[in-house]
Amino acid sequence: MNYSWYNGKIDLTENTRINTDDLGFLRGYGLFDYFRTYNGKPFQWDWYWERFNNSAKLLRIPLSLKKREAEVILKELFALSKLDEVAFRFLLTGGNAPDSSTMTAPNLLVRAENVPVLSSELFERGISIITENYTRDIPEIKSTDYKRLLSLQTVLQEKEAKDVLYHTKGQLTEMSRSNIFLVKNGIIKTPKKGILKGITRRTVLELAKPDFEVLETNIQLEEIFEADEVFTTSTNKKVMSIIKIDDIMIGGGLTGEVSKILLSRFNALAGSW
Amino acid sequence: MNYSWYNGKIDLTENTRINTDDLGFLRGYGLFDYFRTYNGKPFQWDWYWERFNNSAKLLRIPLSLKKREAEVILKELFALSKLDEVAFRFLLTGGNAPDSSTMTAPNLLVRAENVPVLSSELFERGISIITENYTRDIPEIKSTDYKRLLSLQTVLQEKEAKDVLYHTKGQLTEMSRSNIFLVKNGIIKTPKKGILKGITRRTVLELAKPDFEVLETNIQLEEIFEADEVFTTSTNKKVMSIIKIDDIMIGGGLTGEVSKILLSRFNALAGSW
Repeated sequence: MNYSWYNGKIDLTENTRINTDDLGFLRGYGLFDYFRTYNGKPFQWDWYWERFNNSAKLLRIPLSLKKREAEVILKELFALSKLDEVAFRFLLTGGNAPDSSTMTAPNLLVRAENVPVLSSELFERGISIITENYTRDIPEIKSTDYKRLLSLQTVLQEKEAKDVLYHTKGQLTEMSRSNIFLVKNGIIKTPKKGILKGITRRTVLELAKPDFEVLETNIQLEEIFEADEVFTTSTNKKVMSIIKIDDIMIGGGLTGEVSKILLSRFNALAGSW
Repeated sequence: MNYSWYNGKIDLTENTRINTDDLGFLRGYGLFDYFRTYNGKPFQWDWYWERFNNSAKLLRIPLSLKKREAEVILKELFALSKLDEVAFRFLLTGGNAPDSSTMTAPNLLVRAENVPVLSSELFERGISIITENYTRDIPEIKSTDYKRLLSLQTVLQEKEAKDVLYHTKGQLTEMSRSNIFLVKNGIIKTPKKGILKGITRRTVLELAKPDFEVLETNIQLEEIFEADEVFTTSTNKKVMSIIKIDDIMIGGGLTGEVSKILLSRFNALAGSW
């Protein structure tokens, strides 16, 4: 039984309801952020809060909540959850619009959620993905716009793929909810532009830089099929190996050494948070 | 006091609430349609129903409601409204997602709303608009994605403009919630590709064709500044003259004759619906 905070009130999530004229619902005018705790403490909270504020600024939705107030909400929701670890979702919309289109006072929702558990076997084995020519609108904003991914659900099922890798006319950008990395001849590369800069991406870059050459650069789609290793980073996927893209095996279909090292470093950092 | 039908139940709109894990709200996975009555009868209902079904198909959200069932809902909501005319909004989303991302059973909302009244003075005088390089994702779908328009609200206020005209790198497409037409040397032109094909657009094309040369074709942005007349079509704007675009006067800043004739024909058709 998880709880949510909505415009100042805490209630069970299942009892938290929004109006049908909320502009996030009615007009897709919403943004969010998502993170989790390790040892009960929000992981990389400062970075997530900074990004959430940046998304709000770019989408021009005023965020009146202060950081200290947000921290009080997180503590309350965590205590109510009675869980060892939780995920938090902040969601900010343009508010309720009696005329169906004009922004009024923004609505802010904070949900505590169960942390999805991905099996250690999945991390060892890696996942299959497909590619799609698609560019998110203003990719620097973590908007709620996932309609492209959701409209591809049946395609993903047919191809037994877990996720979608986007490119803009052949230039790699990001996955639907995570960042993409490749390893070639020991060098780690990840796209620099047209992406949402993930907090796990930022963390992994910091963990890699002491021992690896890392390039944030433009990458063409063809390069990824020639890579020695490919992996993706996100709050839930951490450092997840990708072993097949569009039916083409990557790295002989086995999770590579660099991916394993970075996952291990990430787990060590998170475990001591 | 308007009423809504939501997943089989009718209630006051203000008492109709959605869950926070609705995929339209959480993930922008939603589509809609919007139309109004004239003389109490849904205007061009067959065309709107066809388009709503097409949007659902393209976004891959199953729509189980049958046309006859939808008509019963419209009648009930209209009767409850106690109004002479109403607007209807259908909104279909991917449903509630306990895991925040996987489609379950779709949610369908039908709202009866007051018809916005635009003054006859506004129709006579026309409106000012601004342009924006922006392409809606899968424009053939009437999705709920209006975040670009809403993020431009403060810009619109500063420029005293009413709406936004989109182009894709200089090629005209559509306005934020309506279609665009220009008149040059007596020929009516409107974009053919990359647009949502409006029902008012379709109606106006039928009303124009007996007496005017009409071209559905590619149009470059520069052409519109050289036009004799520019107008836009939608359920609420009907045939609305545009007299200023990005601070450039169109047609000497006066509503043109073709625009007036087409508005008059549209009003005659609607009045006798």
